[in-house]
Parts: sequence; C-alpha cells; structure tokens
Amino acid sequence: MRSLAGDVIKQTFLLQPEGKLHRRLYAAISRCILEGALKPATRMPPTRDLAEELSLSRNTVLRVYEQLQAEGYLSSRTSSGTFVTDSVLDNLGIASERVAKVPADGDYASLSVRCQDLLEHVSASPLQWGAFVPGVPDVQRFPHRVLKKIQDRLAQRMTAEFLTYDASGGVLALKIALADYLRTARGVRCSPEQILITEGIHQALDLVTRSLCNPGDHAWIEEPGYWGIKNILRMNAVDFSAIAVDEQGMKPPEKRVTPPRLIFVTPSHQYPLGSVMSLSRRQQLISLARETRSWIVEDDYDSEFRFSGQPIPSLQGLEEESPVIYIGTFSKTLYPALRLGYVVLPQALASPLKKVHSDLYRGGHLLVQAALAEFISEGYYAAHIRKMRQLYSRRRQKLVDMILHTFGSAWLGDFNSNAGLHLILQLPAGADDRAIAREANEAALLVRPLSRYYVGDTKQSGLLLGFASLDEEAMTPAFDRLAAIVKRHLQTQGVAPAFAPGQ
Amino acid sequence: MRSLAGDVIKQTFLLQPEGKLHRRLYAAISRCILEGALKPATRMPPTRDLAEELSLSRNTVLRVYEQLQAEGYLSSRTSSGTFVTDSVLDNLGIASERVAKVPADGDYASLSVRCQDLLEHVSASPLQWGAFVPGVPDVQRFPHRVLKKIQDRLAQRMTAEFLTYDASGGVLALKIALADYLRTARGVRCSPEQILITEGIHQALDLVTRSLCNPGDHAWIEEPGYWGIKNILRMNAVDFSAIAVDEQGMKPPEKRVTPPRLIFVTPSHQYPLGSVMSLSRRQQLISLARETRSWIVEDDYDSEFRFSGQPIPSLQGLEEESPVIYIGTFSKTLYPALRLGYVVLPQALASPLKKVHSDLYRGGHLLVQAALAEFISEGYYAAHIRKMRQLYSRRRQKLVDMILHTFGSAWLGDFNSNAGLHLILQLPAGADDRAIAREANEAALLVRPLSRYYVGDTKQSGLLLGFASLDEEAMTPAFDRLAAIVKRHLQTQGVAPAFAPGQ
Repeated sequence: MRSLAGDVIKQTFLLQPEGKLHRRLYAAISRCILEGALKPATRMPPTRDLAEELSLSRNTVLRVYEQLQAEGYLSSRTSSGTFVTDSVLDNLGIASERVAKVPADGDYASLSVRCQDLLEHVSASPLQWGAFVPGVPDVQRFPHRVLKKIQDRLAQRMTAEFLTYDASGGVLALKIALADYLRTARGVRCSPEQILITEGIHQALDLVTRSLCNPGDHAWIEEPGYWGIKNILRMNAVDFSAIAVDEQGMKPPEKRVTPPRLIFVTPSHQYPLGSVMSLSRRQQLISLARETRSWIVEDDYDSEFRFSGQPIPSLQGLEEESPVIYIGTFSKTLYPALRLGYVVLPQALASPLKKVHSDLYRGGHLLVQAALAEFISEGYYAAHIRKMRQLYSRRRQKLVDMILHTFGSAWLGDFNSNAGLHLILQLPAGADDRAIAREANEAALLVRPLSRYYVGDTKQSGLLLGFASLDEEAMTPAFDRLAAIVKRHLQTQGVAPAFAPGQ
Repeated sequence: MRSLAGDVIKQTFLLQPEGKLHRRLYAAISRCILEGALKPATRMPPTRDLAEELSLSRNTVLRVYEQLQAEGYLSSRTSSGTFVTDSVLDNLGIASERVAKVPADGDYASLSVRCQDLLEHVSASPLQWGAFVPGVPDVQRFPHRVLKKIQDRLAQRMTAEFLTYDASGGVLALKIALADYLRTARGVRCSPEQILITEGIHQALDLVTRSLCNPGDHAWIEEPGYWGIKNILRMNAVDFSAIAVDEQGMKPPEKRVTPPRLIFVTPSHQYPLGSVMSLSRRQQLISLARETRSWIVEDDYDSEFRFSGQPIPSLQGLEEESPVIYIGTFSKTLYPALRLGYVVLPQALASPLKKVHSDLYRGGHLLVQAALAEFISEGYYAAHIRKMRQLYSRRRQKLVDMILHTFGSAWLGDFNSNAGLHLILQLPAGADDRAIAREANEAALLVRPLSRYYVGDTKQSGLLLGFASLDEEAMTPAFDRLAAIVKRHLQTQGVAPAFAPGQ
C-alpha cells in the first residue's frame, strides 16, 4: 500500500471478515477515525488504490467515501483529494467527558412544572372497554359497513388533495352537514364557516385554551367536573376555580375576585352529575360572560342521548351572538377511536382560530371526514342516534331498576337525569369510592370513583356507571358482582349502609 | 279554563297554528314565561285540565311540562303541583343588559399573547398539492389497495378495544414493527416500550415542548429552520434562539448565556437547507446537551430519501443513553393525511410522557395503526420506500439538470445534498423571494420563499422546490413557467441575475 492511511484501513478491514463488503469498509474507516488511528486532516488513499489493495470494486470504495463525507468523517478538496475532517478528534475529546446522565426513570425533576402538575392528576384509564365503562357508547352497534361502503366509493374518485395536509379546518362537506345537523338537532346558531373539525374534544379544548388564555390566566370549571379539561388547563399553565354545581348546573359565585377568561360548562348534561342547566342559569351565565368579557365553552358531549322530553337546546343558541364556543364530538354518537370532534366558533374567532389550528396541529383524515359528511347528509347519522337512544334508554332503565331493587332510591345520584351514557350510584358519606372502584376495576367492572372528579375537599362519594356498552342480559351478572363488592367494602370500611331496596 | 295561567297559555297556543302539537305547546308556554305573561312562581294548570282545554292528549302535555322542567322554566313541588320557576324573570332582567359585544372579526385583542404571537407568523399554506410543493411525497403512488386489504381483513376480527379510547400510546404491534425498522434502517437504539405513536410530528413536538419546558424557558432551533417548531414553541410560551447552520448543520454558539432546555435539530437532512450534520457536530451537540442537561430533539422527517451513499444513521443512536428524543413520521414516506408519527423517548421519559399524551390528547385510530404494523412487518413499507427513493432520485436529478441548464450551478443552494423531497433554488442577494413565491403560487407553482424560514435579519434569498410530487414529464413545463416568473421578477426588482447556464 502506498500510504500509511491505506495500511491502517486495510488492517482494520481484515479484522472484520463478516458482512457485505461496503459495510465492512465503512465500519473499518469510521472505526479508524473514531479510535484516532486516522488523525484529522490525514489524506485518504485514492479510491483506485484502496480498491486495488482490498480487491474491491472502485464503485464500492467510492460509495463508502461518499457516505463518510455525507456523515462528516471525510471531506473532499477539489483536485487535491479526500481528507479526514479537521475537527473530528477535538470533538471526540469532548464527547468522552460524559457530564450528566439522563435522569433515572421516575425522576420527574427535569419535567416542566405544568407537566408535573398534570402527572399528579393523571386520569385517563388504560381500561376503556368493559362493563360499566362511562362515556363510551356501544361501539359494536356502529354500522361500520355503511361508512366503509361510502368511504370505498369516495376512495375511487379520491384526488391527491385528500391525502395531503389540510389547512382549512376540515372538509367543507362535513362542515355543511354538521351546521345543518346542529341547527336542527341542537339549536346551535351557526354557518359552516364557523365550524372547525378537530381531533376529538380534547384538541378543541386545548386549542381554545391556548388561544384565549395567557399562562396564569384564570378559568372556571364545574365542581365536580370532567378531568380532561382540568389537565388541559394544567398543561397550558392556566389557573382555575372549581365552581360548585347544583340541580340547575354551575352556580356562579356571588363574589368574584378574578373574572374568568373562560368558563367551561356542560349545560345539557352536567358531567358527571347529570343535572341540566336551568334557563335562568343560562341567561345569568351569558350576561356574566358579556360583562366580564369572558368566553363560555359549552361542552355538549352527549346531549344526543336524552330519553324523555325533547333534547335540551344548546346554550350557544339561546341568544344571538352569544359569547359561547360550542364543542361537540362523534366519540359518543359513533365511536371514540374515530377521533373526530368539532367546534362552533363565534364569528370573531373563526378565522384566527382556524389559522392557529392549522399551524399548530396540521389537518388530515380527509377521506373519513368526507365519508362522514355523506353518512350524515344521507340520514344514517340521525338514524343511528335514534336507534342508540332507544337502546341506551332501555339499558339505563334496566340499571336504574337494579339499583332501586338492590340498594334503594337514596342511592341514585340527586341530579341524575334521564339522559346520557352513565349515571351516578351515590354511596353513603364516608365511603371510600376509590378503593371500591379499584377492586371493581380488577374484576373488569370499569366504574370510576366520583370523588376523583372533584378538585376541592368537599367530595361526594359515588361511582360512575356507564350503561351504554353492555346489553341488558349481560348487565345483571355484572351488576350483581359490583353490588357484592360495594356491600363488602362498605362493611369493611365501617360505613353504615342505608339499604332500602325497592324504594 | 279554570285558571288565568291556562287562559294565557291557550291564547298563545292558538296564535301559532303551525307545527306538531307538542312543539306548539312548548313554544307557547316558554314564550309566555320569557315575555312575562306567566310570572315567576305562578302555578301551572294541572296537565289533565290543560289537555282537555286544548284538545290534546294528556301525554303530550306531560311531555312538554317535563321538557320545560328539565330546562328550568318550570319546577314541580311534590303534591302541590307545577310552578313557573322563581328566578326566571330576575335573570331575564340581567340578560337584557348586553354589556359587551363579541369583538369584531379581525380584532385579536382578546386572544392570548402566545396566540397573537403565532398569528403573526402563520405559515401553513392552504395550498398543499401541486407543482413543486415541498415536503409532500407523491401521495398518488401510495399502494392504498394493499393497506386497505390489510385493514379490511383486520376489521373482520376487530374487537371493541380497537374502537374506543387508547391510553397506551398506540397499538403495540406498530411499536414493535417500528422499533425493528428504526433499529435497522435508522440506527436508532430503542425498544418498543420507548415508542409513542402520535398524530404526526406536530403533536410529538407539542407534547415534548410542554412536558419539558416551563413558560419562559429557552430552546434552540436551527436558522433557517422549520416554521412548525417555531409556532409550537410560541404557542407554548417558550423562548428560542435561532442558531445558524452551516455545511455541517447547527453550529452551537461559543458563548452561551442561557443554557437551552431543548435543542431542535434535523441532523440527517437540515430543513430547509439540506446539509448533513457532521460527526463532530453530532458529538459536540450530545456533549453539550449532557453538560447543560438539555434534551436534543432530533426531527428525522425525510431521512428515508437519500439517493446516494447509505442513509445517515440517526443522532439518537450515536451514543448509548444519549439525551436525544427522536421524532419521525409517515407523512413523507406514505402520505400526510394519514396523520401518523412517532417519538422514540429516552427510557426516563417514556412512562411519564405516555401518560401525559393519553391525558392531553387521548388516543385512537387503532385499526389503521394495526394495519400499518402489518404493512411494515410484511415488507410493503420498505418496498414502497425503495420504489419512491428511485422515483424521487430521478425527479431530483431532472430538476437539478433543469436548474443547471437554465440558471447555472451558482443557483443551486450551497448545502443541497442528494436527498429529501425538495431542494433550494438560490436567488441572487437582494431578490425578493416572497414576491416571487407569491406570483408563482398564483400560477399554481407551490414554491416557498426561503427567507420565511429565518427568524433573524440575515436571510438568504431562495425558493424551496419540492420535486417529489411531480413526474418528470410534467416538471418541464412547470419549471419553464417558474423560470419565466423568476427572471421577470429579478429584472423588475433590479437584481442583477447572474445566469451562467450549463455550469
């Protein structure tokens, strides 16, 4: 070999007789450089010479040199050859001083304050399908074939636009179909331009929170209330007050120190207690929001399922130009994994928030959105809801009957209305609902403890029981197992159970 | 009628002769209450009497009363009848004082500072498919049928778990397939447990930023660099310094005042300039991160497309337990509307960040994830990438040839490497690349102005030209139109064009 560099490479190359030739050569040269056998600024042997010496094709050597150049091991100076890059070893020196190790697992010290705050309140359960899971519809009843058929048909004439990024806040056809549906079914006042399609309710809440609140701003939430919104507020460094709900819904405090930027409510069916916000409260809340220049965020998550009376019209539609941001989802009417929700934005916010949405999340899933538009406009959506409404109504009645029969009417939550996908089994004061839920979960009964939905100290003890996912036949044995767990726990906990079956 | 209330309702009921009976009755009573004809605490006529008087079935009246109760117009006192709710009118009084109107469209005063900051830098174009669109692959070449076939087969034996919320950071099969792929193809050191499936790269960047940075914390980004990360930092109230890149990638500043919490880099193919981060820089950056306890976020967005030499291994895999968070996406290898990306988290962060992800965004899209896992493990993914690599390589060569032929080699960006989905057409200093891009966009040529990717004042003028979406035949006329626009603009702008065709 005509150069020291060539000899060094050859020796290292021969040390590793396994593998494809170009990989072996690559490994040999990079190792020589990393271990200092080839010093910075060393001139590399010409490709022709090295190829000859190692009995390789010149192309192989060329490829490896190119690769090493692209990675910064080598650099080429036109007409004077290829060299080991000047700065390689200096930096190798630094690299060997490993100052700090990655923190050990479980050490949250290096996580942000907002993240630690959320982690102290993690709520999403890994168990999302089973007896009594709240907030999940009967996903097995969804007419997948119908949606698939529409989707397959649309896919035939799908253009490239449906496969790329979306920067318009969703497929127009879906916005039109939704505006129509929301006007008729929910009394929402809106045009398609006000609608933004989101990745479920969470993305909508997250977008609205960040767009309207600075870190340290203040929001009102319901007490008890949905964990999701609390964690979204935490993650956006927004403070909040938990405002107690009564049978009329959120009861705004008489004395107000900090006016809220945002007021999060579930007026059609308070989550999780179930009360319906009264007309007077609705009017009071809108007046208050206008006064303090706050925005009300109406989470209308499961209002489609009201089993007696007509559906309660939305808060958004109560007054013209109300300061209400309306949020809905297909997770409860169709199925959660679809991850499709929507926001109806006030005119003033529609354009800016759509821009923020597109820049922050980027859009997509356009084919399924187009299919869903047809699913709605051809009447399948309303038909499915009607069917599920009857189904869930029967299932709810069955669950109520079992509670009355086993425990008595005092065990039905005060504000349970004849609606939704879950109800509250109220436990005697002092009962440890978390312990009961834990044991029930282990027995595949996915109830949730009511006390976890509170922020403050005054907590009601109870269990959220979803009734939508389980047919009536399967409900009986599941309920019996649950009742046994509840009774045993109350006895162990020394909480006087006031059973009054049949009342 | 035996009561004044009944008479009032009857009159109002008869005023509106259209529509279904229960709707008419509902409208009549609520109108009486809202207009004050029925005062608060007024006792409502018994349902039997009202039904008789209006010739309605008693069930209809019962339903309407129930509805009005649920909405708070009426309240019932057991055994003493139904009454107009006490507080209705008080609150009506308040409601009529409309203090503040919703701000007019375009008035951003009520948006958060972070949101206004983002809005001043909105970057996602509504045009995402057409000649020279950068960062978008040829979505029409994707083998939809293959993925659909797998998906249809899986759907046959799909259980309910695939349709509900996901709280485990994605389908396990996909994480396993990805871990395998990333180890082999990208030199990433990871186990499936470290992988989190995300809604594209943006969700991954957003999650990592919020989880690791407090508002006001500091990050480093590349200058020039991807607009998406800047807007995500803005929206999370994280400050940043734009660190210049050279032919070796990001060049960390000698003097460091504020140590960064996060360092965002694109080492395999710097976005948008195209340089490959040298080995020495890689080592320097990792050392620096260990020293300052920073995390490096490696955005490996299009590294699959390297047309000569082997793919550049990831920065993440360079050292064991490196402080690197690795992010990748299927948007460039398959198609953007799929909205699937992934993060490889360091062991220490895997568990907490998955929890945060689940609470903050909730998971879903499980069927397509499962199908994609099969698509990868059965070799379709690698085969598609190989095919596209050849295709894009030819298209890139064609574009390079046209640039050389029309403008000369000085017009090819300094750091363009033989990789990716776009390259830089460098414009003479002083050229207004935004004006050129604007006119080109109007002519459906979706180039982007390079200067928009800079934060600081020292901007290079140029155009990002995507070459992946257009076949070679269609490229010629599109390029000719673009070249004409560029030349005309430079003449109008009085910028001396240094054409040296053929060089």
